[in-house]
Amino acid sequence: MVEYQQMTTAQLQDELDSLTKSHSEYTTRALKLNMSRGKPSFEQLDSAMDLMTALPADQRPLDLDGEDTRNYGLLRGIPEARQLMADYLGVAYGNIILGGSSSLNLMYDSIARAMSFGVAGNTPFSQQARLKFLCPSPGYDRHFAITALFGFENIAIPMNDDGPDMNMVERLVNQDPTVKGIWCVPKYSNPQGITYSDQVVRRFAALKPAAPDFRIYWDNAYAVHDLYPDSNKADDLLSLTLACEEADNPDIWYMFASTAKISFAGGGISALASSTSNIAQIEALMSIQTICPDKVNQLRHVRWFESLGGGQGKGLDGIKARMKQLSAMLAPKFDIVDQVLSEDLGGCGIASWIKPNGGYFISLEVLPGTAKRTVQLCAEAGVTLTDAGATWPYGVDPEDSNIRIAPSYPSIEELEQASRLLAVSARLAAVERLLGKGV
Amino acid sequence: MVEYQQMTTAQLQDELDSLTKSHSEYTTRALKLNMSRGKPSFEQLDSAMDLMTALPADQRPLDLDGEDTRNYGLLRGIPEARQLMADYLGVAYGNIILGGSSSLNLMYDSIARAMSFGVAGNTPFSQQARLKFLCPSPGYDRHFAITALFGFENIAIPMNDDGPDMNMVERLVNQDPTVKGIWCVPKYSNPQGITYSDQVVRRFAALKPAAPDFRIYWDNAYAVHDLYPDSNKADDLLSLTLACEEADNPDIWYMFASTAKISFAGGGISALASSTSNIAQIEALMSIQTICPDKVNQLRHVRWFESLGGGQGKGLDGIKARMKQLSAMLAPKFDIVDQVLSEDLGGCGIASWIKPNGGYFISLEVLPGTAKRTVQLCAEAGVTLTDAGATWPYGVDPEDSNIRIAPSYPSIEELEQASRLLAVSARLAAVERLLGKGV
Repeated sequence: MVEYQQMTTAQLQDELDSLTKSHSEYTTRALKLNMSRGKPSFEQLDSAMDLMTALPADQRPLDLDGEDTRNYGLLRGIPEARQLMADYLGVAYGNIILGGSSSLNLMYDSIARAMSFGVAGNTPFSQQARLKFLCPSPGYDRHFAITALFGFENIAIPMNDDGPDMNMVERLVNQDPTVKGIWCVPKYSNPQGITYSDQVVRRFAALKPAAPDFRIYWDNAYAVHDLYPDSNKADDLLSLTLACEEADNPDIWYMFASTAKISFAGGGISALASSTSNIAQIEALMSIQTICPDKVNQLRHVRWFESLGGGQGKGLDGIKARMKQLSAMLAPKFDIVDQVLSEDLGGCGIASWIKPNGGYFISLEVLPGTAKRTVQLCAEAGVTLTDAGATWPYGVDPEDSNIRIAPSYPSIEELEQASRLLAVSARLAAVERLLGKGV
Repeated sequence: MVEYQQMTTAQLQDELDSLTKSHSEYTTRALKLNMSRGKPSFEQLDSAMDLMTALPADQRPLDLDGEDTRNYGLLRGIPEARQLMADYLGVAYGNIILGGSSSLNLMYDSIARAMSFGVAGNTPFSQQARLKFLCPSPGYDRHFAITALFGFENIAIPMNDDGPDMNMVERLVNQDPTVKGIWCVPKYSNPQGITYSDQVVRRFAALKPAAPDFRIYWDNAYAVHDLYPDSNKADDLLSLTLACEEADNPDIWYMFASTAKISFAGGGISALASSTSNIAQIEALMSIQTICPDKVNQLRHVRWFESLGGGQGKGLDGIKARMKQLSAMLAPKFDIVDQVLSEDLGGCGIASWIKPNGGYFISLEVLPGTAKRTVQLCAEAGVTLTDAGATWPYGVDPEDSNIRIAPSYPSIEELEQASRLLAVSARLAAVERLLGKGV
């Protein structure tokens, strides 16, 4: 196949006619598919139903210390759940506070606390004249929305194939005292599925921020979310905590995680981790904010994971076993998208994507200036994609080239159809553009 | 018995000797009792254990609209749980947003939102030079702690036997634009167990605040928490919502509730209610803050309450049935405290208390200047009470006279012992004071 950029106008015109016809055929089929949402499928959720009855009705749900999970108290959470999430994140037990079902809420609260009360004794953000936040892009729109809401200037940082452009990060963080943080999804990044290299993690740990209240917001959302554990294709992430200790930078990190994509997306447990002194400040403020997270659900999770892992104290093994179950459901979905894109877009020279080893998304780069049009063409034929631009600060992709694909929710058959339409749409948009007929 | 204030010095001296001896006897007994915490007892929690298995493991937990409670989405909560909490609070379905297990967290977030983003388009609180909040006292220390944390001047409002001193409330709210809100527990108030009269509710509804961003923070924590439903001793609370509509003041209220003291204290569901336009503002901001509350737990609660109430849509009947179960456990505890105080403090003329028809506390007024000493004397003999002063802003009771008693957690035997010690301690502190030997 001739790559589009090498085609003559006549060849492009033929391709336009052919693609327009293909696209019309999809339109008449009246599909109703959705590849926009990073949601677990019914099948994934159904396979977690033992969680529902992990706590028997005939036994008091007491924690390891004999405290009643049903009652008030234990702001940080119950010991066995804190230990589990500490092991999960690779931090010490004393560095964990558990939250409700949404780790996003813990992130929002971290920014909100910094706005009102400052970080580590520094002036509250709300009393500082100018605030900036770094946003590796493409990235997670809900991260960017939090700092945008609070009035930060969100600054896009380009993503390389081993993580954010650290030259730019270092320059901004180390020189500009109005830069207060950076959003990171360090493993199987949303949406590209990139895991930060050891060198990138070490450069994060070695930052020397101009702002004393700068923090790294390390959202380890996909810490164990490998797609190919059986073939040992999994990305290792260096421990930021250890790297920060080595770099004598112990207080620079906040870490977040949840079981949303392990147990129930809308009914899991979440965790915030940070250094001992950061946690002490956070806990003092949280003690005014709330009584405690849902500790019954914490114990329910621990018991379920332990049952999957082979007994008491084996919760982390249970999580790993659980992720194997899930990878068996998810990997074929990622595979079909990759296969169809390879077949239908591979030779055109107008698109690229990474086939990730984990996470929840595939990030497609189409011809600059055609992402919006591609998403529109898909919508016309009944396939919903994430809005083009959503993965960039303020929803504006400067190249208009990034499209986030979420393969988890639809069936394999649906994904195949939707991916073929996506390929046709991306090609059609590219041809239109190259012919000067772009929108 | 001669009242203490009528006693001669010699009589007081005799009384001092006798009480000191009694108190010493308690001290040698080395009690270890706690009447400080408004926590449900094991018995109460055990009787809610069917909640644990209210959702079967072999059935998808779908909501009324067929949405999967296990997945992401539904920021406001599932329809049946919203309807239940709307009925519970006596507001319309559209005026409810559900939260996690802690309604305190919803209150904190309401203040935090107003700090950062303002109320209804007004200047954010954080950008206003001076902020005041009204605190009917004695009241709930955790309310006062929130506004103190955010830098409000907390102003104590005296409590009459039908609610807060509305003359003072009206004067402050209607004249001072720095007054931004008032904390209310309108039914079975914490700690006095007072229910606001219809007239008080109507005066609240008719407030004409000098501040456009003033709101009533109506924490209906004990909406159904009657102690004597069988004998029809229960306090009715006029609907603030309806009263506000009548007074053409539709946006002045925020309302809060939770099932903490109905199901599990640390694993219930909570609700925030307000006018349509307030809720719209709140929801827009919450959509950035979080994904959704734990909807599985919402459905679990609805199903359990419906099973107690006799079927689908009968959740509110189920809550009422549940409260009858709980009143049978709680009323005897309140009764024994009242009985002992009547027997041992009744004739001394130095103490008063209200025997409430509901709620979680008994509020004891001792001789001014002796509350701290009374609590200290109890502690010396092994009985922990809430810190004297805790029920007032900044923990300072100007009269040093209020002691909050929480009868729910200890057994009846323990409550009898603890109450007898409390009576001895209050008398001893009073005699010391009258003899000029006070601390």
